[in-house]
Amino acid sequence: MAAEDKPTLGVGMIGYSFMGRAHSQGWRGAHSFFDPPALPRLVAIGGRDAAAAQETADRFGWESVETDWRELIARPDVDIVDICTPGDTHAEIAVAALAAGKHVLCEKPLANTVEEAATMAAAAADAARDRGVRSMVGFTYRRVPAIAYARKLVQDGRIGEVRHVRAQYLQDWLVDPEAPLTWRLQKERAGSGALGDIGAHIIDLTQFVTGESVAGVSALTETFVKERPLPGDTARGLSADVSEGRGQVTVDDAAIFVGRLAGGALATFEATRFATGRKNAIRLEVNGSRGSLAFDFENMNVLWLHDAAVPAVDGGFTRVLVTEPEHPYVAPWWPQGHLLGYEHGFTHQAADFLTAVAEGADPTPSFADGLQVQTVLAAVERSAASGAAWTPIAPPS
Amino acid sequence: MAAEDKPTLGVGMIGYSFMGRAHSQGWRGAHSFFDPPALPRLVAIGGRDAAAAQETADRFGWESVETDWRELIARPDVDIVDICTPGDTHAEIAVAALAAGKHVLCEKPLANTVEEAATMAAAAADAARDRGVRSMVGFTYRRVPAIAYARKLVQDGRIGEVRHVRAQYLQDWLVDPEAPLTWRLQKERAGSGALGDIGAHIIDLTQFVTGESVAGVSALTETFVKERPLPGDTARGLSADVSEGRGQVTVDDAAIFVGRLAGGALATFEATRFATGRKNAIRLEVNGSRGSLAFDFENMNVLWLHDAAVPAVDGGFTRVLVTEPEHPYVAPWWPQGHLLGYEHGFTHQAADFLTAVAEGADPTPSFADGLQVQTVLAAVERSAASGAAWTPIAPPS
Amino acid sequence: MAAEDKPTLGVGMIGYSFMGRAHSQGWRGAHSFFDPPALPRLVAIGGRDAAAAQETADRFGWESVETDWRELIARPDVDIVDICTPGDTHAEIAVAALAAGKHVLCEKPLANTVEEAATMAAAAADAARDRGVRSMVGFTYRRVPAIAYARKLVQDGRIGEVRHVRAQYLQDWLVDPEAPLTWRLQKERAGSGALGDIGAHIIDLTQFVTGESVAGVSALTETFVKERPLPGDTARGLSADVSEGRGQVTVDDAAIFVGRLAGGALATFEATRFATGRKNAIRLEVNGSRGSLAFDFENMNVLWLHDAAVPAVDGGFTRVLVTEPEHPYVAPWWPQGHLLGYEHGFTHQAADFLTAVAEGADPTPSFADGLQVQTVLAAVERSAASGAAWTPIAPPS
Amino acid sequence: MAAEDKPTLGVGMIGYSFMGRAHSQGWRGAHSFFDPPALPRLVAIGGRDAAAAQETADRFGWESVETDWRELIARPDVDIVDICTPGDTHAEIAVAALAAGKHVLCEKPLANTVEEAATMAAAAADAARDRGVRSMVGFTYRRVPAIAYARKLVQDGRIGEVRHVRAQYLQDWLVDPEAPLTWRLQKERAGSGALGDIGAHIIDLTQFVTGESVAGVSALTETFVKERPLPGDTARGLSADVSEGRGQVTVDDAAIFVGRLAGGALATFEATRFATGRKNAIRLEVNGSRGSLAFDFENMNVLWLHDAAVPAVDGGFTRVLVTEPEHPYVAPWWPQGHLLGYEHGFTHQAADFLTAVAEGADPTPSFADGLQVQTVLAAVERSAASGAAWTPIAPPS
Repeated sequence: MAAEDKPTLGVGMIGYSFMGRAHSQGWRGAHSFFDPPALPRLVAIGGRDAAAAQETADRFGWESVETDWRELIARPDVDIVDICTPGDTHAEIAVAALAAGKHVLCEKPLANTVEEAATMAAAAADAARDRGVRSMVGFTYRRVPAIAYARKLVQDGRIGEVRHVRAQYLQDWLVDPEAPLTWRLQKERAGSGALGDIGAHIIDLTQFVTGESVAGVSALTETFVKERPLPGDTARGLSADVSEGRGQVTVDDAAIFVGRLAGGALATFEATRFATGRKNAIRLEVNGSRGSLAFDFENMNVLWLHDAAVPAVDGGFTRVLVTEPEHPYVAPWWPQGHLLGYEHGFTHQAADFLTAVAEGADPTPSFADGLQVQTVLAAVERSAASGAAWTPIAPPS
Repeated sequence: MAAEDKPTLGVGMIGYSFMGRAHSQGWRGAHSFFDPPALPRLVAIGGRDAAAAQETADRFGWESVETDWRELIARPDVDIVDICTPGDTHAEIAVAALAAGKHVLCEKPLANTVEEAATMAAAAADAARDRGVRSMVGFTYRRVPAIAYARKLVQDGRIGEVRHVRAQYLQDWLVDPEAPLTWRLQKERAGSGALGDIGAHIIDLTQFVTGESVAGVSALTETFVKERPLPGDTARGLSADVSEGRGQVTVDDAAIFVGRLAGGALATFEATRFATGRKNAIRLEVNGSRGSLAFDFENMNVLWLHDAAVPAVDGGFTRVLVTEPEHPYVAPWWPQGHLLGYEHGFTHQAADFLTAVAEGADPTPSFADGLQVQTVLAAVERSAASGAAWTPIAPPS
Repeated sequence: MAAEDKPTLGVGMIGYSFMGRAHSQGWRGAHSFFDPPALPRLVAIGGRDAAAAQETADRFGWESVETDWRELIARPDVDIVDICTPGDTHAEIAVAALAAGKHVLCEKPLANTVEEAATMAAAAADAARDRGVRSMVGFTYRRVPAIAYARKLVQDGRIGEVRHVRAQYLQDWLVDPEAPLTWRLQKERAGSGALGDIGAHIIDLTQFVTGESVAGVSALTETFVKERPLPGDTARGLSADVSEGRGQVTVDDAAIFVGRLAGGALATFEATRFATGRKNAIRLEVNGSRGSLAFDFENMNVLWLHDAAVPAVDGGFTRVLVTEPEHPYVAPWWPQGHLLGYEHGFTHQAADFLTAVAEGADPTPSFADGLQVQTVLAAVERSAASGAAWTPIAPPS
Repeated sequence: MAAEDKPTLGVGMIGYSFMGRAHSQGWRGAHSFFDPPALPRLVAIGGRDAAAAQETADRFGWESVETDWRELIARPDVDIVDICTPGDTHAEIAVAALAAGKHVLCEKPLANTVEEAATMAAAAADAARDRGVRSMVGFTYRRVPAIAYARKLVQDGRIGEVRHVRAQYLQDWLVDPEAPLTWRLQKERAGSGALGDIGAHIIDLTQFVTGESVAGVSALTETFVKERPLPGDTARGLSADVSEGRGQVTVDDAAIFVGRLAGGALATFEATRFATGRKNAIRLEVNGSRGSLAFDFENMNVLWLHDAAVPAVDGGFTRVLVTEPEHPYVAPWWPQGHLLGYEHGFTHQAADFLTAVAEGADPTPSFADGLQVQTVLAAVERSAASGAAWTPIAPPS
């Protein structure tokens, strides 16, 4: 189908900062490299700060700016609502958008509480059933080629029965005790700290790659620096100026937990913003009866693969450069050995969502998947609050 | 300056395949992340195959297609001509474009011969002097943040006097003797083989990072597989179908050489398409009197840095993740630890070229720089043709 | 002091297999490279299988063989008793040796139960106080230069306040379900499985490097393969033939736990014989407020060191090759860059023990340290047995 | 054959410093781990400094000291003469020892000149033919398990036809311009600098692993620091005190060269003591038509192996931990994953030489092999002296 014959889907995106820019790059480039059966039109960007939203609009080609998200949702030329705002606003916007018949892509974590997430998942299920409306939660790391390939290898039985998972998300941007108290450190805005922000990713990745859900956890959390300077006026993205006042950090700096997967595997998890020297180290190792996988996002184009069928005399972990045309998402990009980066996942996500909407299929990860991750996060919090007590988690329905 | 107040520069790009797509992505996104004082308008894409050119136009937003490059150059709305065609066509197009008063960005190698390159460099100098026209050759790897930072460290004296360079560009896409005889393996089209295609990059990177030119070489080249199947009809980019006929490979598969830099350092170079298992391994190591640097494009966001001032008891090579806002080109992108990929260099290149044109400054690498690399390539060929005889190279004028 | 003027200490070693050979190499070479104030004499090796013991004696220069350990202990020319037998025999031998006034080096784990370990520690304390008798438990990995240097860096405040520890001991020699049921898989002989055998090491290393004890744990253990073939007649070391019968595996295959250190740091632990592809991966990472450390025994001459005082633009993890003369234990060996191996730790251990005995100083790790590790192991087992319940551990007295 | 029934071979070693200690450790432990059909007896150590020689004797169990090497050679209880002295003394000692009917192990390089080496090789051939006397040159790195396994893989055709070799020996111990002018920097003692000391190793390793000789070279050498302080009185091994005088460095600091192997492969070589940050980096990469190998001595228990038969989607370089019992030399040592170190190669060398002598077989590398390396070294020097001119090398006879 030639480009001029493809239908167009109008996208309205709410948020214009870090995630807004990453999503913009995704929407803008999805059809440049992939072939979704519908083309995106960047209809409107939403943000309370009109000037800031306009700047992002100018940079990425959004046709208009809306300062009230309700107006954006109401526009007839908006088919898809893309929610890139902090977690405390997700539920209200998403439920309204679904009710308005819009397809919804919502950044992770789906919500700040299980209750909100459950409301959203129910609304999504209703909207899908009643109005053919599609929804997806933005666990973008699933669409890093090495991660997508890791899942395929597990699904194909290449590593056999899963015995161990080691999942870590290590950052260090809060090691400095004078780093400011941005919204991500406030419980009422962010829901939780490292746990919800980055722990959510490793829970999702563990379940995505292994195909098994977390069945129970024992957890510890900690806030190493309990008071921080309040941010100044120019906060944006992950950085911010500092004012003279100080405030309480009301979220965790780090969370660690052991758990069991539904199939019996043992798993260790760690999410922290205090791993000095690690910048964005999403590390995932899976050991199975037939082989193993290892991944580190700080070298995201590589998947380490061990095949136990190769005798140890010639065996070991193979450094697979995940840039071959046979690897997921890679073929439309560049020749082998030419690396992809962080934001490519957002292009993959946009292409997949456009395809699902155009084809009338339910994309993944669904809001139900997002709710399930939220359920695990809540279990971690309950366990930590009750002295690391074992906390079982009901299997996904 | 707000976006709406910026002047616009019309870009006309010739070529639509691998390099055409990479450059398109660069032109399209330069102002999304950077702040060049002029905005690009993607006016026209040129290609003899109108349908193929139209497809790239649709994907990246080129406003029109021209099947005759002379028409493209002649258009008054084209301010910048971007040449992404094989090397044998560069000189004619570039000289014509410069004569027409267009700014020119030309893919590397600048030309297939020193003579052509010299003509181009002279035309560029004339055009700059007479008409304020800017020109640049596309050694894009200079704009990988880790490489740009490596140069800065050398310039700042951080590794002291340069003693050793090890520069390798290792690929393996010709190991299969049944890989087809594409234009890159034909001397009349490509000029040379691994030497001009990838050897040019490591010569340029060595000179760029160290700030010293290559003063002489002793070289060996080899064509390991001398005959290959002719390509079929669907050749594009680096891959192609195969037909039944066979033809002679008329270029080198690999080139190795030792050389001296102008400052006395010893350098080893290797460019090959037969390094089995290496996909795009541009490896550069520099040892100086005060420290060392090491880089591998297969892990392109990392620069290994050694500081001899740190006592060995605590010293060694430090794995610097070149994703900090202080690193060259990084700030406009993502938070630390969020990696960049191959095509980001093309965005940096487009932003830099737009800035130079808008500010009336001469960008680098200039056509004279491209000529100088061509001079080194020619010396390598002469040395190899005369039994690895030492072949001095005149210093750049 | 010239060698001929040094006093001699007679060593009697019980056990001749894997550990017996490693200890033999240690005793034999300690004075070749180091300068302990007393020289070892390899007086007697003990083992029930006289021929097997004689073979080890011939290979390493033991002067005689004793088939009854009581005879060995009773010999007046034996000053030091070195216990290299399975854990269930440690207490009886050690207590008898101490009572006989012999200095005792006992392989880890100190015992199979806290009760035995407590008896041994009490006997050691009595013997030290009453008879000046020295004792040490063989946590040899403490004497890998990179580990010893890591401890020094923490002690010197180089990484600041400890926030995170990740301690893993990953092996895969039991992945094959047909691997035989050797004594290491039998609870009555080995006490526990991966937990006591290799988990003991990472508990000790964590406490040694950080200088902090484990204050509580929540743990999971698992036996993935519950039945295995019984071994044949030729079992030795870690390998064995297989007979036709099958038996129950009565120990854990893997143990994972989260814990808190006394200073508040969060720690994750994992000991497993099912990490497919990992052979002897003792991995230890410590993140502090001022820097970080990372170690992997599979590359045991390297310590990765991060110094948060270096700006991130030039910072990261530095690969320190721990082969400089300033590094612990390194100077007597080879020039920089010439690596040490596994058994060098046993040479260091022998040299340190000879020195302590000759100087009348109490060596470390003491039996009390061994008891403390046993206490942590017991807490892990209790936690695992009670559904991963949080299990506090009393601080060392 | 039980140990008591084995014949004994008396070893007389000349030299007691760095190499003397490494060889001592080798002779002392060969029969502890391996099963040579003859047992070594450490009869005598030779050195002009009797006290220093006595110290090494005491440490390693040499029975006596000889201050005149002629006396040592003449002793009837000496069957094997092991020469660990500087290169300028090798020829005289070796020829005399061979004439006396002694088996000779001689440290590398075999001699300081081709002429001396040729004399030695001829003497060795005569002695073998006439008197059944064995000789070997100490290219010990051949007996690092990963190197020995690399050779086997090439011999077995696992990487196919060899196309590329990259061989580097990188050190940095002369970067400091105030490092003293030890004998290794004096042409009359050492013959050459980095070239003969460490370049000899990578020439030998290249030829050993590929099974092909170097057929010609173009070379550059450099002395970066031309004058250094004279050493003080306490020089020993690689380190030394400094006196007030200064002297000329008369050897090369670094040598680089390109070459062709007999089978047509292209090879680059680099030997330097000025690679800041590299301590003992012997790096060898071999690319063949069916696969590749890569090795770095700074991680000497690992061999990176690429098998081109594995599709690139799952392929890449596999990190083989060369600690499996099936790997060369490994079985007698420790379980998998327990690393070997630098001096283990000397144990392997001693065991192999004892076996060859006892079995009446000619060991490798022979003096003829040592001569052939010397021939390549001389060609490198001639090429460098004549402006990097191509210098062919006659094939080994």
